[in-house]
Amino acid sequence: VAANTQSSEVPAEPMWLSDREQAAWRGLLDLHDRVMARLHQELRRESDLSGPDYSVLVGLSEAPGQLLRARELGALLHWEKSRLSKQITRMEERRLVQRQVCPTDARGSFVVLTDVGRNAIELAAPLHLRHVRECFIDVLTTEQLGQLAEISATVVAQLGCDGAAAAATCDD
Amino acid sequence: VAANTQSSEVPAEPMWLSDREQAAWRGLLDLHDRVMARLHQELRRESDLSGPDYSVLVGLSEAPGQLLRARELGALLHWEKSRLSKQITRMEERRLVQRQVCPTDARGSFVVLTDVGRNAIELAAPLHLRHVRECFIDVLTTEQLGQLAEISATVVAQLGCDGAAAAATCDD
Repeated sequence: VAANTQSSEVPAEPMWLSDREQAAWRGLLDLHDRVMARLHQELRRESDLSGPDYSVLVGLSEAPGQLLRARELGALLHWEKSRLSKQITRMEERRLVQRQVCPTDARGSFVVLTDVGRNAIELAAPLHLRHVRECFIDVLTTEQLGQLAEISATVVAQLGCDGAAAAATCDD
Repeated sequence: VAANTQSSEVPAEPMWLSDREQAAWRGLLDLHDRVMARLHQELRRESDLSGPDYSVLVGLSEAPGQLLRARELGALLHWEKSRLSKQITRMEERRLVQRQVCPTDARGSFVVLTDVGRNAIELAAPLHLRHVRECFIDVLTTEQLGQLAEISATVVAQLGCDGAAAAATCDD
Protein backbone atom coordinates (compact mmCIF):
# COMPACT_ATOMS: atom_id res chain seq x y z
CA VAL A 1 0.00 0.00 0.00
CA ALA A 2 1.27 3.45 -0.94
CA ALA A 3 4.82 2.13 -1.17
CA ASN A 4 6.08 4.87 -3.44
CA THR A 5 4.41 7.90 -1.89
CA GLN A 6 6.85 10.81 -2.13
CA SER A 7 4.47 13.69 -1.52
CA SER A 8 2.75 14.65 1.71
CA GLU A 9 -0.48 12.91 0.72
CA VAL A 10 -1.98 10.61 3.31
CA PRO A 11 -1.86 7.01 2.12
CA ALA A 12 -5.37 5.56 1.94
CA GLU A 13 -4.66 2.84 4.49
CA PRO A 14 -1.77 3.42 6.82
CA MET A 15 -0.59 0.08 8.12
CA TRP A 16 -0.82 0.73 11.85
CA LEU A 17 1.51 -1.31 14.03
CA SER A 18 0.29 -4.52 15.65
CA ASP A 19 0.57 -4.84 19.43
CA ARG A 20 3.78 -6.82 19.10
CA GLU A 21 5.32 -4.34 16.67
CA GLN A 22 4.22 -1.44 18.83
CA ALA A 23 5.79 -3.08 21.90
CA ALA A 24 9.12 -3.44 20.08
CA TRP A 25 9.12 0.08 18.64
CA ARG A 26 7.98 1.88 21.79
CA GLY A 27 10.29 -0.46 23.67
CA LEU A 28 13.31 0.79 21.76
CA LEU A 29 12.36 4.43 22.35
CA ASP A 30 11.60 3.89 26.04
CA LEU A 31 14.72 1.84 26.62
CA HIS A 32 16.96 4.45 25.06
CA ASP A 33 15.26 7.51 26.53
CA ARG A 34 14.91 6.15 30.05
CA VAL A 35 18.48 4.86 30.26
CA MET A 36 19.90 8.10 28.82
CA ALA A 37 17.79 10.23 31.19
CA ARG A 38 19.16 8.26 34.15
CA LEU A 39 22.74 8.47 32.91
CA HIS A 40 22.48 12.22 32.31
CA GLN A 41 21.00 12.71 35.77
CA GLU A 42 23.88 10.80 37.40
CA LEU A 43 26.45 12.57 35.24
CA ARG A 44 25.16 15.95 36.32
CA ARG A 45 25.17 14.88 39.97
CA GLU A 46 28.73 13.56 39.85
CA SER A 47 30.43 15.92 37.41
CA ASP A 48 30.03 19.31 35.77
CA LEU A 49 29.14 17.71 32.46
CA SER A 50 25.77 17.49 30.72
CA GLY A 51 24.88 14.55 28.50
CA PRO A 52 25.73 16.49 25.31
CA ASP A 53 29.04 17.66 26.84
CA TYR A 54 29.88 14.04 27.56
CA SER A 55 29.02 12.89 24.04
CA VAL A 56 31.23 15.55 22.45
CA LEU A 57 34.16 14.78 24.76
CA VAL A 58 33.91 11.02 24.11
CA GLY A 59 33.78 11.61 20.35
CA LEU A 60 36.89 13.79 20.40
CA SER A 61 38.83 11.65 22.90
CA GLU A 62 38.37 8.59 20.66
CA ALA A 63 39.38 10.40 17.45
CA PRO A 64 42.96 10.22 16.11
CA GLY A 65 44.81 13.32 17.33
CA GLN A 66 41.83 14.09 19.58
CA LEU A 67 40.25 16.36 17.01
CA LEU A 68 37.50 16.16 14.40
CA ARG A 69 36.12 18.42 11.70
CA ALA A 70 32.86 20.00 12.92
CA ARG A 71 30.92 18.16 10.22
CA GLU A 72 32.48 14.83 11.17
CA LEU A 73 31.58 15.40 14.80
CA GLY A 74 28.03 16.32 13.77
CA ALA A 75 27.70 13.14 11.71
CA LEU A 76 29.09 11.03 14.55
CA LEU A 77 26.56 12.44 17.01
CA HIS A 78 23.72 12.68 14.45
CA TRP A 79 23.27 16.33 15.40
CA GLU A 80 22.26 19.15 13.14
CA LYS A 81 24.72 21.91 12.42
CA SER A 82 23.05 24.59 14.54
CA ARG A 83 22.76 22.34 17.57
CA LEU A 84 26.42 21.34 17.31
CA SER A 85 27.56 24.91 16.81
CA LYS A 86 25.78 26.18 19.94
CA GLN A 87 27.05 23.25 21.99
CA ILE A 88 30.66 23.81 20.87
CA THR A 89 30.43 27.53 21.67
CA ARG A 90 29.27 26.74 25.22
CA MET A 91 32.03 24.17 25.66
CA GLU A 92 34.64 26.54 24.27
CA GLU A 93 33.66 29.12 26.91
CA ARG A 94 34.35 26.47 29.55
CA ARG A 95 37.68 25.62 27.84
CA LEU A 96 36.65 21.98 27.36
CA VAL A 97 37.23 22.18 23.60
CA GLN A 98 38.75 24.63 21.14
CA ARG A 99 37.86 25.52 17.56
CA GLN A 100 40.83 25.57 15.16
CA VAL A 101 40.71 26.88 11.62
CA CYS A 102 43.30 25.63 9.16
CA PRO A 103 44.03 28.53 6.77
CA THR A 104 45.16 26.25 3.91
CA ASP A 105 42.12 23.97 4.14
CA ALA A 106 38.72 25.20 3.03
CA ARG A 107 36.88 22.16 4.40
CA GLY A 108 35.81 23.84 7.60
CA SER A 109 37.08 24.18 11.15
CA PHE A 110 38.27 21.52 13.55
CA VAL A 111 37.08 20.93 17.09
CA VAL A 112 39.97 19.96 19.36
CA LEU A 113 39.95 18.40 22.82
CA THR A 114 41.80 20.62 25.35
CA ASP A 115 43.68 19.44 28.44
CA VAL A 116 40.73 20.64 30.53
CA GLY A 117 38.38 18.56 28.39
CA ARG A 118 40.63 15.50 28.54
CA ASN A 119 40.82 15.75 32.30
CA ALA A 120 37.03 16.11 32.56
CA ILE A 121 36.32 13.04 30.43
CA GLU A 122 38.93 10.95 32.24
CA LEU A 123 37.24 11.75 35.54
CA ALA A 124 33.71 11.23 34.29
CA ALA A 125 34.13 8.10 32.15
CA PRO A 126 34.57 5.52 34.93
CA LEU A 127 31.58 6.93 36.84
CA HIS A 128 29.48 6.93 33.71
CA LEU A 129 30.51 3.36 32.98
CA ARG A 130 29.48 2.25 36.45
CA HIS A 131 25.97 3.57 35.82
CA VAL A 132 25.83 1.92 32.38
CA ARG A 133 26.56 -1.35 34.19
CA GLU A 134 24.09 -0.78 36.98
CA CYS A 135 21.08 0.25 34.95
CA PHE A 136 21.66 -1.68 31.73
CA ILE A 137 24.38 -4.35 31.47
CA ASP A 138 23.88 -6.02 34.84
CA VAL A 139 20.09 -6.15 34.45
CA LEU A 140 20.24 -8.24 31.28
CA THR A 141 21.34 -11.84 30.69
CA THR A 142 24.32 -12.69 28.50
CA GLU A 143 21.82 -14.02 25.98
CA GLN A 144 19.87 -10.76 25.93
CA LEU A 145 23.07 -8.76 25.42
CA GLY A 146 23.79 -10.92 22.38
CA GLN A 147 20.24 -10.51 21.08
CA LEU A 148 20.41 -6.74 21.32
CA ALA A 149 23.78 -6.57 19.55
CA GLU A 150 22.40 -8.72 16.73
CA ILE A 151 19.18 -6.72 16.40
CA SER A 152 21.23 -3.54 16.15
CA ALA A 153 23.66 -4.98 13.60
CA THR A 154 20.76 -6.19 11.43
CA VAL A 155 18.96 -2.85 11.37
CA VAL A 156 22.11 -0.75 10.95
CA ALA A 157 23.37 -2.94 8.08
CA GLN A 158 20.07 -2.49 6.28
CA LEU A 159 20.20 1.29 6.73
CA GLY A 160 23.43 1.31 4.70
CA CYS A 161 25.99 4.08 4.68
CA ASP A 162 23.69 6.51 6.39
CA GLY A 163 26.53 8.26 8.20
CA ALA A 164 27.54 9.93 4.95
CA ALA A 165 23.98 11.10 4.32
CA ALA A 166 23.76 12.46 7.87
CA ALA A 167 27.01 14.37 7.39
CA ALA A 168 25.67 15.82 4.14
CA THR A 169 22.39 17.04 5.65
CA CYS A 170 24.40 18.39 8.57
CA ASP A 171 25.90 20.96 6.21
CA ASP A 172 22.64 22.04 4.61
CA VAL B 1 34.76 -2.11 43.31
CA ALA B 2 33.96 1.49 44.18
CA ALA B 3 30.29 0.66 44.46
CA ASN B 4 29.47 3.57 46.73
CA THR B 5 31.51 6.33 45.10
CA GLN B 6 29.48 9.52 45.33
CA SER B 7 32.22 12.05 44.70
CA SER B 8 34.03 12.75 41.46
CA GLU B 9 37.01 10.59 42.45
CA VAL B 10 38.16 8.11 39.84
CA PRO B 11 37.56 4.55 41.09
CA ALA B 12 40.85 2.65 41.26
CA GLU B 13 39.76 0.01 38.76
CA PRO B 14 36.95 0.98 36.45
CA MET B 15 35.31 -2.20 35.19
CA TRP B 16 35.62 -1.63 31.46
CA LEU B 17 33.03 -3.37 29.33
CA SER B 18 33.79 -6.74 27.76
CA ASP B 19 33.47 -7.08 23.99
CA ARG B 20 30.01 -8.59 24.34
CA GLU B 21 28.85 -5.89 26.75
CA GLN B 22 30.31 -3.20 24.54
CA ALA B 23 28.54 -4.64 21.49
CA ALA B 24 25.20 -4.51 23.31
CA TRP B 25 25.67 -1.01 24.71
CA ARG B 26 27.04 0.57 21.53
CA GLY B 27 24.43 -1.47 19.69
CA LEU B 28 21.62 0.21 21.58
CA LEU B 29 23.05 3.68 20.94
CA ASP B 30 23.73 3.00 17.26
CA LEU B 31 20.36 1.38 16.70
CA HIS B 32 18.49 4.31 18.22
CA ASP B 33 20.59 7.08 16.71
CA ARG B 34 20.75 5.64 13.20
CA VAL B 35 17.04 4.85 13.02
CA MET B 36 16.08 8.26 14.40
CA ALA B 37 18.46 10.04 12.01
CA ARG B 38 16.84 8.25 9.08
CA LEU B 39 13.31 8.96 10.31
CA HIS B 40 14.08 12.65 10.85
CA GLN B 41 15.62 12.87 7.40
CA GLU B 42 12.51 11.36 5.79
CA LEU B 43 10.20 13.49 7.92
CA ARG B 44 11.95 16.65 6.78
CA ARG B 45 11.78 15.54 3.17
CA GLU B 46 8.08 14.73 3.28
CA SER B 47 6.73 17.34 5.69
CA ASP B 48 7.58 20.66 7.29
CA LEU B 49 8.25 18.99 10.63
CA SER B 50 11.56 18.35 12.36
CA GLY B 51 12.02 15.33 14.63
CA PRO B 52 11.46 17.42 17.78
CA ASP B 53 8.33 19.02 16.23
CA TYR B 54 7.00 15.54 15.57
CA SER B 55 7.70 14.33 19.11
CA VAL B 56 5.88 17.29 20.65
CA LEU B 57 2.88 16.90 18.35
CA VAL B 58 2.59 13.17 19.05
CA GLY B 59 2.81 13.77 22.81
CA LEU B 60 0.03 16.36 22.70
CA SER B 61 -2.18 14.49 20.25
CA GLU B 62 -2.16 11.42 22.51
CA ALA B 63 -2.89 13.39 25.70
CA PRO B 64 -6.45 13.72 27.04
CA GLY B 65 -7.89 17.01 25.77
CA GLN B 66 -4.82 17.36 23.52
CA LEU B 67 -2.95 19.42 26.07
CA LEU B 68 -0.24 18.88 28.68
CA ARG B 69 1.43 20.97 31.35
CA ALA B 70 4.86 22.05 30.13
CA ARG B 71 6.55 20.00 32.85
CA GLU B 72 4.52 16.91 31.94
CA LEU B 73 5.50 17.30 28.30
CA GLY B 74 9.15 17.74 29.33
CA ALA B 75 9.02 14.57 31.43
CA LEU B 76 7.37 12.64 28.61
CA LEU B 77 10.07 13.65 26.13
CA HIS B 78 12.91 13.52 28.69
CA TRP B 79 13.86 17.06 27.69
CA GLU B 80 15.25 19.74 29.92
CA LYS B 81 13.21 22.83 30.61
CA SER B 82 15.23 25.23 28.45
CA ARG B 83 15.19 22.91 25.43
CA LEU B 84 11.44 22.43 25.73
CA SER B 85 10.80 26.14 26.17
CA LYS B 86 12.75 27.10 23.03
CA GLN B 87 11.07 24.36 21.03
CA ILE B 88 7.58 25.43 22.13
CA THR B 89 8.32 29.06 21.27
CA ARG B 90 9.36 28.07 17.74
CA MET B 91 6.28 25.88 17.32
CA GLU B 92 4.01 28.63 18.68
CA GLU B 93 5.35 31.00 16.02
CA ARG B 94 4.29 28.45 13.41
CA ARG B 95 0.88 28.08 15.12
CA LEU B 96 1.39 24.34 15.64
CA VAL B 97 0.85 24.69 19.40
CA GLN B 98 -0.32 27.35 21.82
CA ARG B 99 0.67 28.16 25.40
CA GLN B 100 -2.26 28.67 27.77
CA VAL B 101 -1.96 29.99 31.29
CA CYS B 102 -4.71 29.17 33.75
CA PRO B 103 -5.04 32.19 36.11
CA THR B 104 -6.45 30.11 38.99
CA ASP B 105 -3.76 27.45 38.80
CA ALA B 106 -0.21 28.21 39.88
CA ARG B 107 1.19 24.92 38.58
CA GLY B 108 2.48 26.37 35.34
CA SER B 109 1.25 26.83 31.81
CA PHE B 110 -0.29 24.31 29.44
CA VAL B 111 0.83 23.51 25.92
CA VAL B 112 -2.17 22.92 23.66
CA LEU B 113 -2.37 21.33 20.21
CA THR B 114 -3.89 23.73 17.65
CA ASP B 115 -5.92 22.78 14.57
CA VAL B 116 -2.83 23.54 12.47
CA GLY B 117 -0.77 21.17 14.65
CA ARG B 118 -3.42 18.47 14.54
CA ASN B 119 -3.57 18.68 10.78
CA ALA B 120 0.23 18.50 10.51
CA ILE B 121 0.50 15.40 12.69
CA GLU B 122 -2.38 13.67 10.91
CA LEU B 123 -0.59 14.18 7.60
CA ALA B 124 2.85 13.18 8.88
CA ALA B 125 1.98 10.17 11.06
CA PRO B 126 1.20 7.63 8.30
CA LEU B 127 4.35 8.58 6.39
CA HIS B 128 6.44 8.33 9.54
CA LEU B 129 4.92 4.95 10.30
CA ARG B 130 5.79 3.67 6.86
CA HIS B 131 9.45 4.50 7.48
CA VAL B 132 9.37 2.90 10.93
CA ARG B 133 8.18 -0.26 9.17
CA GLU B 134 10.72 -0.08 6.37
CA CYS B 135 13.83 0.57 8.41
CA PHE B 136 13.00 -1.22 11.64
CA ILE B 137 9.94 -3.50 11.93
CA ASP B 138 10.20 -5.25 8.58
CA VAL B 139 13.93 -5.91 8.98
CA LEU B 140 13.51 -7.92 12.17
CA THR B 141 11.93 -11.32 12.81
CA THR B 142 8.87 -11.72 15.01
CA GLU B 143 11.16 -13.34 17.55
CA GLN B 144 13.54 -10.39 17.55
CA LEU B 145 10.65 -7.95 18.03
CA GLY B 146 9.64 -9.96 21.09
CA GLN B 147 13.22 -10.01 22.40
CA LEU B 148 13.55 -6.25 22.12
CA ALA B 149 10.23 -5.62 23.87
CA GLU B 150 11.31 -7.90 26.72
CA ILE B 151 14.79 -6.35 27.03
CA SER B 152 13.18 -2.91 27.23
CA ALA B 153 10.58 -3.97 29.80
CA THR B 154 13.29 -5.54 31.99
CA VAL B 155 15.53 -2.47 32.00
CA VAL B 156 12.70 0.05 32.39
CA ALA B 157 11.16 -1.90 35.30
CA GLN B 158 14.50 -1.89 37.08
CA LEU B 159 14.87 1.86 36.59
CA GLY B 160 11.68 2.34 38.61
CA CYS B 161 9.51 5.44 38.62
CA ASP B 162 12.11 7.51 36.85
CA GLY B 163 9.53 9.60 35.01
CA ALA B 164 8.73 11.41 38.24
CA ALA B 165 12.41 12.12 38.85
CA ALA B 166 12.82 13.40 35.29
CA ALA B 167 9.85 15.73 35.75
CA ALA B 168 11.36 17.04 38.97
CA THR B 169 14.77 17.79 37.45
CA CYS B 170 12.99 19.36 34.50
CA ASP B 171 11.80 22.12 36.84
CA ASP B 172 15.17 22.81 38.45
